[in-house]
Amino acid sequence: MKKLINDPKNVVDESVAGFALAHADLVTLSTEPLFIARSDAPVSGKVGLVSGGGSGHEPLHAGFVGFGMLDAAVPGPVFTSPTPDPIIAATQAVDGGSGVLHIVKNYTGDVLNFETAADLAEAEGITVRTVIVDDDVAVKDSLYTAGRRGVAGTVLVEKIAGAAAERGDSLDEVATVAEKVVAQVRSMGVALTPSVVPHAGEPSFTLADDEIEIGIGIHGEPGRAKISLEPADQIVDRLLEPILEDLPFESGDDVLLFVNGMGGTPQIELYILYRRAAEVLAERGITVTRSLVGNYVTALEMQGASLTVLKLDDELTTLWDAPVQTAALRWGR
Amino acid sequence: MKKLINDPKNVVDESVAGFALAHADLVTLSTEPLFIARSDAPVSGKVGLVSGGGSGHEPLHAGFVGFGMLDAAVPGPVFTSPTPDPIIAATQAVDGGSGVLHIVKNYTGDVLNFETAADLAEAEGITVRTVIVDDDVAVKDSLYTAGRRGVAGTVLVEKIAGAAAERGDSLDEVATVAEKVVAQVRSMGVALTPSVVPHAGEPSFTLADDEIEIGIGIHGEPGRAKISLEPADQIVDRLLEPILEDLPFESGDDVLLFVNGMGGTPQIELYILYRRAAEVLAERGITVTRSLVGNYVTALEMQGASLTVLKLDDELTTLWDAPVQTAALRWGR
Repeated sequence: MKKLINDPKNVVDESVAGFALAHADLVTLSTEPLFIARSDAPVSGKVGLVSGGGSGHEPLHAGFVGFGMLDAAVPGPVFTSPTPDPIIAATQAVDGGSGVLHIVKNYTGDVLNFETAADLAEAEGITVRTVIVDDDVAVKDSLYTAGRRGVAGTVLVEKIAGAAAERGDSLDEVATVAEKVVAQVRSMGVALTPSVVPHAGEPSFTLADDEIEIGIGIHGEPGRAKISLEPADQIVDRLLEPILEDLPFESGDDVLLFVNGMGGTPQIELYILYRRAAEVLAERGITVTRSLVGNYVTALEMQGASLTVLKLDDELTTLWDAPVQTAALRWGR
Repeated sequence: MKKLINDPKNVVDESVAGFALAHADLVTLSTEPLFIARSDAPVSGKVGLVSGGGSGHEPLHAGFVGFGMLDAAVPGPVFTSPTPDPIIAATQAVDGGSGVLHIVKNYTGDVLNFETAADLAEAEGITVRTVIVDDDVAVKDSLYTAGRRGVAGTVLVEKIAGAAAERGDSLDEVATVAEKVVAQVRSMGVALTPSVVPHAGEPSFTLADDEIEIGIGIHGEPGRAKISLEPADQIVDRLLEPILEDLPFESGDDVLLFVNGMGGTPQIELYILYRRAAEVLAERGITVTRSLVGNYVTALEMQGASLTVLKLDDELTTLWDAPVQTAALRWGR
């Protein structure tokens, strides 16, 4: 295991501390319990947005804390859900009196811990709504999940719901638009190499020198199949077909196309994937009106990528375009 | 070699095509010869900024084309300088009548080809000034370089010079501020793994399982020493000490601290490096007033990182903060 870390048990604490130092203009750090909040939280009268989950997926979620997106992010240990305590504390810290939305990727641990936290926060008088993201079309159930996994589509939910909250929508309205994004977004990924959880020190799964895994999860959970390495264009076709069939996406649709890197794949490759995906969509009469390319939902140093397609309408496009000011996504302000 | 590519000989063309598709709101693509330009180029009356170099360092340089930064980027083959032809074409395409600044990383091929292009552009009546970036303190001469190599500091030169051009500075003024950044910026990097040039198919150098290379170049050129893997904090100390001694940076200085990922290192590790670097600077009485953390100047899928420190003053800080709208760096607009 070769990593730029100190003691494996301090990876998350030290990384989050570095993040808070680097972005002190945007966020504040709470260490006990551990969460990152917008530096101006709570914003009076605004719905608060909280997300979180196991670490190792950076910039998700702390990188999306700031104006127009999340109010707080709760990082758990690497690939392990945070406990209810920090989720409750983050929920309290960002409640501006209009309630709090929890955005939760569909993993059993996250769902349970956020549910417990929501119950306890409600008991203290904070109205909480929860949206579960389950955009991964690869497999029905998985190693850590009942139902579909929540993956890169989460970024789009956080951005769009964050914009709705920022413009003053009510908790019900913000939850409704978040649910709409969940209903209209689909993803699927591929791994070329496994990742190594620091305290484990060994790869979480193995792939032969010429092997890739189609439909991989962001913790290395098994996907649909291990196959021989293929040209990038064929891999794109393998990922995009199940995505498009699932909703289904149809000729005439406007979409956001998101090519996400898993952490160890360089940008030069991500744009090769983007090129083919855009080509396939064009052939089908689907218009890419917005795009996102980069490492946004990662699996430590895994080499690989995922494709995400979101069906847009005027409302979602307007909210996507709205100003955002976070460490990892920033425009218009 | 496991990569998300098609035919190795098409890597650059396909990736640049994908980039232009994904960012059609910001840039336009010229294919023969190959360069990326701001979609509104030439901007009448504004000094044009052109940079370029071998591909494989993405988002450098195309990711920095747009309002407030570069007017054009000229990508060569992977790790190989572009020829003068596309540099001349890009220079012509962005000349708004106030001259063009070439920003060149100090590699022999780049320096020669940009020099030839500048001479030919001058012969056609375009005034060209050139700034050579040589921020890498690791080694005096290197595999492809006489003098110091130009590495991650290039991003800071491009951002700050771009802001000067955008506010209407003359060619001499833009060149002067770019030279000032070069004079005040220092970098050094480390590699944990080599990268593989697609058409070569083999790693450009080798490192044992417990070995890292201190002072690595962004093409895998030899650095100062191969040593055993150490805790991240010690590695930071090894990189930062030569940087700080060189200028030297002194107590009372305000600086921008830039932790750059080499492509295959995840963000969770970059922030661990940031934390220690910020700590060391604080101990020395040096104040970090601006920061940048991420994969900005990469070496394909190399695992590793570099540290860059830029001494700031009011002028450089104002220009750093000025609005920028590019694929890889965007704020304030």
